[in-house]
Amino acid sequence: MPVNYQTPAADRLFAVDGIELGPAQAGVKKPDRYDLLVVRIAPGARVAGVFTRNRFCAAPVLVCRDHLARTAKTSRSIRALVINTGNANAGTGDAGLRDARAVCTELAALLACAGDEILPFSTGVIMEPLPVARVVAGLPRAVAALAPNAWPLAAQSIMTTDTVAKAASRRIDVSGDTYAVTGISKGSGMIQPNMATMLGFVATDAPLAQPLLDEIVRDIADQSFNRVTVDGDTSTNDSFVVISTGTGTAISRRDDPRFAPVFAALCDVARELAQAIVRDGEGATKFITVTVEGGRDADECDRVARAIAHSPLVKTAFFASDANLGRIVCAVGNGGPADLDTSRVDIHLDDVTIVERGGRAVSYREEDGARVMKQPEMTVRVALGRGAATATVWTCDLSHDYVSINADYRS
Amino acid sequence: MPVNYQTPAADRLFAVDGIELGPAQAGVKKPDRYDLLVVRIAPGARVAGVFTRNRFCAAPVLVCRDHLARTAKTSRSIRALVINTGNANAGTGDAGLRDARAVCTELAALLACAGDEILPFSTGVIMEPLPVARVVAGLPRAVAALAPNAWPLAAQSIMTTDTVAKAASRRIDVSGDTYAVTGISKGSGMIQPNMATMLGFVATDAPLAQPLLDEIVRDIADQSFNRVTVDGDTSTNDSFVVISTGTGTAISRRDDPRFAPVFAALCDVARELAQAIVRDGEGATKFITVTVEGGRDADECDRVARAIAHSPLVKTAFFASDANLGRIVCAVGNGGPADLDTSRVDIHLDDVTIVERGGRAVSYREEDGARVMKQPEMTVRVALGRGAATATVWTCDLSHDYVSINADYRS
Repeated sequence: MPVNYQTPAADRLFAVDGIELGPAQAGVKKPDRYDLLVVRIAPGARVAGVFTRNRFCAAPVLVCRDHLARTAKTSRSIRALVINTGNANAGTGDAGLRDARAVCTELAALLACAGDEILPFSTGVIMEPLPVARVVAGLPRAVAALAPNAWPLAAQSIMTTDTVAKAASRRIDVSGDTYAVTGISKGSGMIQPNMATMLGFVATDAPLAQPLLDEIVRDIADQSFNRVTVDGDTSTNDSFVVISTGTGTAISRRDDPRFAPVFAALCDVARELAQAIVRDGEGATKFITVTVEGGRDADECDRVARAIAHSPLVKTAFFASDANLGRIVCAVGNGGPADLDTSRVDIHLDDVTIVERGGRAVSYREEDGARVMKQPEMTVRVALGRGAATATVWTCDLSHDYVSINADYRS
Repeated sequence: MPVNYQTPAADRLFAVDGIELGPAQAGVKKPDRYDLLVVRIAPGARVAGVFTRNRFCAAPVLVCRDHLARTAKTSRSIRALVINTGNANAGTGDAGLRDARAVCTELAALLACAGDEILPFSTGVIMEPLPVARVVAGLPRAVAALAPNAWPLAAQSIMTTDTVAKAASRRIDVSGDTYAVTGISKGSGMIQPNMATMLGFVATDAPLAQPLLDEIVRDIADQSFNRVTVDGDTSTNDSFVVISTGTGTAISRRDDPRFAPVFAALCDVARELAQAIVRDGEGATKFITVTVEGGRDADECDRVARAIAHSPLVKTAFFASDANLGRIVCAVGNGGPADLDTSRVDIHLDDVTIVERGGRAVSYREEDGARVMKQPEMTVRVALGRGAATATVWTCDLSHDYVSINADYRS
C-alpha cells in the first residue's frame, strides 16, 4: 500500500497535443499483463533525457544516448519511445545492444520513421537476454492501440514491482494559451534489480526550444527524481525523459515570461511522480521529507540529508515510530562537513524541537516526538547554523517488508 | 548466534605483562551485569588510539584525545583505561565532558596517578546524561578486582547488544623473547546507537616505541576495524587503542627485525576482533568477505567493495541465499570508477565464476551459485581488470532480525 498516494482519475490526466500512447500485452516475462508501451511523438518535437550514472548502464540507455546525439546533429527528431518491462536488457553486452536496436528498427518500420528516431527503454531482470521476438511481436498491437487519452493504461503498462500506477498531470494557462503537462513513472526505489528500475516520462505541449530543454531536463531531475531515495542505490536503467511537442513560438530563454510557469509545472509533475515512487517504495510505511538548512552550500546540506535518509538505523526507527534522537544525531555527525560545529546544530521533527545547540532540547518530551513519529508523513528538519543554503530529499522507512520483498523474490 | 565465532577459552587469552583488568557491576543502566571495566597499565607503557570521525563524537572521545596529547608532551604515560557500558555520553555537550573528566579524576585518586593519565570510554544510549555517580561508585570494586588474568570477564563487561564476548590472543616468539598480544572488542556493527558502539583494545608486552606505535595504530585499524561494516554507519564513540607495556629495548623502526612478527600479531588479533563484530552483527546469518582486485589503486577497489557491502539489495540477497547476479553487478557499477570498462570485469563467488568480461559467465549454472550462497561464509571476488591494487572488506547479510533488533529496541 503506497503512503498517501493514488493514481489520479483518468479525466485528471490531460492529453498532450502531439502525444499518443499505445499499451500492449507482449508476454515478455508473464502472460496477460500490459508490459509494452509505445509513445508516439509528433514530428518536430523536442526530446531531452537524463540517464543513470551506473557504470553497468543498460543497453537501451546506451542506445538512447546514441540516438539523441544522432538526431541532434540533423533536422530530424525523436518520433517514439518504446518501453518494455520484465527484462532490463542490462549486463547483456553487445547482444543487448543489437536487441535494443532491433526493437527500434522494427518499430520504425511500423511508424514510417528511422530506427535512430526511436528511444528504447527496458526494466526488469538484469543479466538475462531480452526476449526480442516477443517484444517485436507485440509492437503492432501497441501501435494499433495508439491514442492520446491512454495515459492511465500507459502508466499501468510500465509497472513492475510497483503496487500502484504512477501518473501526474497539470493544465496551465500561460499568456492566453493552455498547455498540458502530463507524465508517468515507475519504480519502488532507486534500484530493484531483477525487476523494477526507475523510469520517468513527462510530456508537455508547451513549445520549449531544444537547447533550453536540454538544459532544464537536468534541473527538473535534480528537483525531483534525484531527490528521492528508497535504498540508496542507483539502478542500471534509470531514465528520465521530457518531451515538448508545442508548435507555437518556441520558448528558448529563461527570461521568456512563459518560461517560469511552464518550468514550474514540469517540476511539479516530475516531483509528484518522483515522490510517488517513494510513497510506493518497497515495504514503505512512512513518507519522510528530510530538509537540511543553514549550510554553507547546497552540497553539504545534501550530504547530511542523504546520510539521514540512507541510515538503516534511522530508517528502522521511522518504521518503529521511535523518535530515536541518537540515531538522527549520529547520521548528522556522519554526513556533516569536517569542520561542523555541532554545538550550533538544531534538529526538528515537524514542529517539535528535539535537538538544540547540539544537545537534547530542554523542552523536548518523548510524547511529543512519539506523536509526530506515528504519522504516515513527517519532516526531519536539520539546521546546521553555518550558512544560508538548503537541500531536501524524500525517503521512506526500512520495514520487515523491505527485507521480505528483496529476500523472497526469485525464491 | 554469531557466524562461526566463539569466545576463546580462558587459558587461550594470554596475560600481558603490565596489564591488569578490573571488571565490576556498576548498575549504569541495568542491575546485576558487568558494565564497568578498569584496565590498569604499568608506568611507562606506550598507548596510542584512533577514534571515530563522526562530527558528533562523544565526550569521552574528546577527553581521550586531550589526555593522549597532554601525556605526549611530558614524560608521563597513560596509566589506565576506564570503560562503561549502558550510556555513550554522546551528544551531551559540556556536561558530558565534565562527567567524563570526573570519572578520570576519581579513578586517578584510587590509582595514585593524575586525571589526565586516564583514558575514558563509554558505550550505550546517546543523548542521555552519564549517571556519573553510579560509575564512580563502581570504581573501587573495579580496582579491587584488578588481575592480569581477568581478560574473559573484561571482554564480557564491555558488551552491550553483543550476543558473545569478543577476545583474541596470540603468543609469539621473537628473537628469543616471548610476547603476548591480547585484545577485546565489542559492538554488533559500525553503529548501534542507544546501546552498542564499537570499541577495541589490544595490549602487548612487546616493547614498541611511542612514535612507532602512534604510526602503526592507524595501519592496524586500517587492516582490521576499518575493514568491517554491518550497516555502513560510523558511531559517535568508536575507539581503538593499542597498548605496549614491554620494558626491554624498544622497537622504534619498521626495519627492526622484531617489528614484522609483532606487527603481524597485532594485526592478526585486531582483525580477529574486528571480524568477530561482523560475525556477531545485528541479525547476521552470513559472514561475507568482499575482495576487489585489479584496480588502479586501493581506494577505487575499496569504493567498489563498500558499494557491494553496503547495498541493502545485495545484503538481502545473501540473507536469502540467492545468487542474484544483477544486484552484485549493479553495486559494482555504482561503486566503480567513472571510466570503468565494464567489459573487463569478472566476478566470482568463491570458486564459481558468475560474471565474465562484464556479462553472465557462459559456464555459470544457477545451482553452482546456489551451492556457494547456502554456506555461512563466502567470498565475493571482483576483478576490475585495470591494475594491480586490491582491497577487502568484511560484512554480513541484512536479515529480518536486523529490522527487528533496530525497530523493536526502546519499544
